[in-house]
Amino acid sequence: MIQGPSDSPGVIDLLGLLAYAELGSFFRLAADAGLAPSLRSKGQLAALAAAEQAHYQTLRDRLEELGVDPEEAMTPFVGPLDAWHARTEPQSWLESLVKTYVGEGIAGDFYRKAAALADEETRTLVEGVLAETGRAEFVSETVRAAVEEDPKLAGRLSLWARRLVGEALSQAQSVAVARPDLAALLAKDPRVSEDGTGLGDLAAVSRMFASLTDRHSARLEAMGLSA
Amino acid sequence: MIQGPSDSPGVIDLLGLLAYAELGSFFRLAADAGLAPSLRSKGQLAALAAAEQAHYQTLRDRLEELGVDPEEAMTPFVGPLDAWHARTEPQSWLESLVKTYVGEGIAGDFYRKAAALADEETRTLVEGVLAETGRAEFVSETVRAAVEEDPKLAGRLSLWARRLVGEALSQAQSVAVARPDLAALLAKDPRVSEDGTGLGDLAAVSRMFASLTDRHSARLEAMGLSA
Repeated sequence: MIQGPSDSPGVIDLLGLLAYAELGSFFRLAADAGLAPSLRSKGQLAALAAAEQAHYQTLRDRLEELGVDPEEAMTPFVGPLDAWHARTEPQSWLESLVKTYVGEGIAGDFYRKAAALADEETRTLVEGVLAETGRAEFVSETVRAAVEEDPKLAGRLSLWARRLVGEALSQAQSVAVARPDLAALLAKDPRVSEDGTGLGDLAAVSRMFASLTDRHSARLEAMGLSA
Repeated sequence: MIQGPSDSPGVIDLLGLLAYAELGSFFRLAADAGLAPSLRSKGQLAALAAAEQAHYQTLRDRLEELGVDPEEAMTPFVGPLDAWHARTEPQSWLESLVKTYVGEGIAGDFYRKAAALADEETRTLVEGVLAETGRAEFVSETVRAAVEEDPKLAGRLSLWARRLVGEALSQAQSVAVARPDLAALLAKDPRVSEDGTGLGDLAAVSRMFASLTDRHSARLEAMGLSA
């Protein structure tokens, strides 16, 4: 078993959370791919799904290397992530695109920020797993084109994006309560640890989310939506 | 474009057929994985699905290398393979296991026999793609245990296995009619080319299937079923 900060409980939580998120992305992409209209797009989505599975495998292998049971590390996050997806079931193709872009965008920023507070090996691993797959551009351009064609979509999809973030924050809060080590890792960021609310680590998650708004706004703008 | 026997129309057909079969396996495994009972088995099935996607990619790359549009090469086989799956929709978990084992078993034997009649590069490629993934043992042992526990399952599942092969032969026949080059490749086998029926290449498919019965019987036996 490797010693050092990379097997701290907060880092194990981060890796477990990310592993389950990648496994979930695999299933959603595979399901979407099965419904894709052409043989070519089916194949492309299958390749994206396989890339998520490879990320999952990388995280799983790392957890095992750290002497941790991967399923045990993932289990605390099954409930919150499944709940987020259940509460944000898209009702249309455009809603599902916005969900992918906004949801994976903010989750990715969140994981990257958390990893930046961990040891270097964890940071490199997480950045590799979150590397851009080229999907973001495809999604933002498709949504933007749809909104330009039918401007009244903008209001509805902007509300949808707000709901996605609200539900994510709500689940992140419940994770922070259940996983104090992960919350403590986030609270290491000097920008979020001094807040005067007296809530300490628990408030760190909210402030972490608040600190992600710049990139979130840029994504909304790329889709032609407003915050 | 590479010249030589590896870009003969029969070989292109074989690679297109196999590519679409692998893509279909990816989707079915991913769908099954989403329904798996535990986090560990979900992950294991996701890994198997990703392996099928990698096989699909290998075949797709090879078709492109041969100067062929992969989607065009796959298209003739979408109808027959989809029809086979639609006509053999499992009604239970055990039926789905038998379908995987019998279906992939006989299809694999068929592809291998066809590849053995092609050039060496194709043969090596096909053998690599069909390499055992370790699933067969898991499936046969699970079915055998269920049949031992409830012996009256044996008759029903044996009938099911017969139906799977019958429907496969029926679809293979329609492929042979539509794709004479593939049928001609099969007819190169000296054991199947002299039949006296006067049907020539068309009969080659039936004889090819007939020649696969040994391994099919061994699979039935491994599951505790009869032919």
